[in-house]
Amino acid sequence: MVLAGKVLVAQGGGPTAVINQSLAGVVLEARRFAQVSGIYGARHGVRGIVSEDFCDLTQETTANLEAVAATPSSALGSTRDKPDAAYCRDMFRVMQAHGIRYFFYIGGNDSSDTVRIVAEEARAAGHEISCVHIPKTIDNDLMMNDHTPGFPSAARFIVQAFMGADLDNRSLPGVYVGVVMGRHAGFLTAAAALAQCYPGDGPHAVYLPERIFRTDAFLSVVQDAMARHGRCVLAVSEGIHDESGTPIVTKLASSVERDAHGNVQLSGTGALADLLCGEIRDKLGIKRVRGDTFGYLQRSFAGCVSDVDQREAREVAERAVQFAMAGQSGSVAIERVGEYAVNYRLVPLEAVAAKTRTMPDEFIDEGGTGVTDAFRRYLTPLLGSGLPQTHRLRSAAVEKILAKGG
Amino acid sequence: MVLAGKVLVAQGGGPTAVINQSLAGVVLEARRFAQVSGIYGARHGVRGIVSEDFCDLTQETTANLEAVAATPSSALGSTRDKPDAAYCRDMFRVMQAHGIRYFFYIGGNDSSDTVRIVAEEARAAGHEISCVHIPKTIDNDLMMNDHTPGFPSAARFIVQAFMGADLDNRSLPGVYVGVVMGRHAGFLTAAAALAQCYPGDGPHAVYLPERIFRTDAFLSVVQDAMARHGRCVLAVSEGIHDESGTPIVTKLASSVERDAHGNVQLSGTGALADLLCGEIRDKLGIKRVRGDTFGYLQRSFAGCVSDVDQREAREVAERAVQFAMAGQSGSVAIERVGEYAVNYRLVPLEAVAAKTRTMPDEFIDEGGTGVTDAFRRYLTPLLGSGLPQTHRLRSAAVEKILAKGG
Repeated sequence: MVLAGKVLVAQGGGPTAVINQSLAGVVLEARRFAQVSGIYGARHGVRGIVSEDFCDLTQETTANLEAVAATPSSALGSTRDKPDAAYCRDMFRVMQAHGIRYFFYIGGNDSSDTVRIVAEEARAAGHEISCVHIPKTIDNDLMMNDHTPGFPSAARFIVQAFMGADLDNRSLPGVYVGVVMGRHAGFLTAAAALAQCYPGDGPHAVYLPERIFRTDAFLSVVQDAMARHGRCVLAVSEGIHDESGTPIVTKLASSVERDAHGNVQLSGTGALADLLCGEIRDKLGIKRVRGDTFGYLQRSFAGCVSDVDQREAREVAERAVQFAMAGQSGSVAIERVGEYAVNYRLVPLEAVAAKTRTMPDEFIDEGGTGVTDAFRRYLTPLLGSGLPQTHRLRSAAVEKILAKGG
Repeated sequence: MVLAGKVLVAQGGGPTAVINQSLAGVVLEARRFAQVSGIYGARHGVRGIVSEDFCDLTQETTANLEAVAATPSSALGSTRDKPDAAYCRDMFRVMQAHGIRYFFYIGGNDSSDTVRIVAEEARAAGHEISCVHIPKTIDNDLMMNDHTPGFPSAARFIVQAFMGADLDNRSLPGVYVGVVMGRHAGFLTAAAALAQCYPGDGPHAVYLPERIFRTDAFLSVVQDAMARHGRCVLAVSEGIHDESGTPIVTKLASSVERDAHGNVQLSGTGALADLLCGEIRDKLGIKRVRGDTFGYLQRSFAGCVSDVDQREAREVAERAVQFAMAGQSGSVAIERVGEYAVNYRLVPLEAVAAKTRTMPDEFIDEGGTGVTDAFRRYLTPLLGSGLPQTHRLRSAAVEKILAKGG
């Protein structure tokens, strides 16, 4: 049965470099269907739905939609609101009042849970709405997906950042700690490993939330790298924790900020990098120890994007519209079907909603601080074309004259 | 008089995205001259000279030199050593022993001072060496230069970073503080202003070391931006200081006891951003306050480079070789001669050595927290081609149905 009515699209959670590709994908694809009487965008995610804060995307030009698609961060605005059942009922009332028949929410696992509840409300009220969740998250932590739009571009940023940070550290040796986003899943931190080109290149170890962090072991890795290479570059996930699950930033620091949900504030602060650098300085007596927290740059930097990611973020939204127009609800998942090719499937919202995928063991080496070839093979095609390459001089040393004896 | 002998090239100070363009420029240009009997590179700057740690660049292929030229960070390695007269005498002895007749040091104002002393030693010893300083520094703080190689690419990184950070902040509103390198000169921090496209775009203020930082004035700027835009993005130089010249990071750290261990890491890279964010949270009661310290990414990120910067970093080195082969010593300076075109002049080493240029008043607006059109006109051509553009949706708001009365 074909439902005549309006399309509503919204963006939730943290922005990515390609989330607007999905927005453009929804709008441009929806325009092809006669049963679509209008296309609304909700400002700031679900918050814009409960407050009826809509803009009329029907009037956007194709050229501007394409320009916005190439712009990072959520053009409609985003929100951290986590709707409960009552909130979703309010959203549903607004959608019903505006004649919304198709609802698309571009977001992570929390967003897919919102879509699930709204779909249930609609069903219960007997008002048919096709509700489709469109995946995005730089954390790459959605179930059922080979990978998620936004992750490849963020991973590319991390690779380019570690290429440069490692060259910088080679030039002026010491210890360098780069702290990367990803509270529960280490995919993005692990991506740093793909910055390595020559033997001895950093990062010399990666610290993932999938493995327990032990300060002693960490310090001996630093000591070992200093002995071998005279320098040490480390990629550390913001989410590293001890055996009890306590974040290391809490352990090392006496006071930390917590958000409304009781989550420790991990991003937007240099605390973890500074604390780890302090440990290295104090315990190992190394002088030149530097820490950077990549912060918001890694998800919103303008001009660092994977073309594969751009294409897929567009396609996943196009497919979402096609599924919805056929009367279906669900979450669109990316499936890898070749080396390299993908397909898009509609999976039940319950299979994705409020679940978290972490790095599989086969991607992490035995020591727990490196990645496997399986991970390299997994990530390489996602990074896209034109990735910078690093090169070094190959000239032989000149024989000493004055210090001949020494 | 033509001096037959070897060329020695070295790189000093902080790496940049294009410093290897200058290295390649020296090697490739020097090969054209018959009097050059060999080309040596010193590992880790002046330190490699006193320790006779040379590599033989004569044997590098052109293809590899071009590949290295496109790679960020100092391929020969760098150093923070500041040679005194005795150190320079040792360097000179080594150069004499190896038959060096042409010495090129790619670096900032400290490096130019080193070149000055070596040239003096050579003159005093009656051993003729042409000594040429090749400028580079992301701080853009060399006298006699319109701008310095390395700065345009770092400025481009800052612009792209603030484009993204501002879009991120628009999407999830709050206060964002980005801390930028440049202890004495604010050029790089001021570059953030070129991220603005639409009215209301951030950064809403820039804080430069050329102006005195007052916490109260800073907090009212934040309050004002929050009232006007519902959000606030700030670019802050790491070198901001009070009227006595005391760095703000020291000042805030002593008065604000939010530190973890009780020992605030003042040199720790995230400290200033975290302290400023703490002030905003405590004094203004704003919840979502985030700070990023751009750290090493801004000078070494692989894949963010200005093509204008690349070209000039190459040319300035070619000209350095040409001046040296004509028997001259000095520092090569970049002069702007058109809109946009440059010329390269040889200036006395004394005019550049150990001096610091800061932002001229005509580049800073009256309030002291913004840039002038003169600065925009100055910086725009340096950023290079293909700078990302940001775009936003233009659609009109949809009339509310349920909340009609409200």
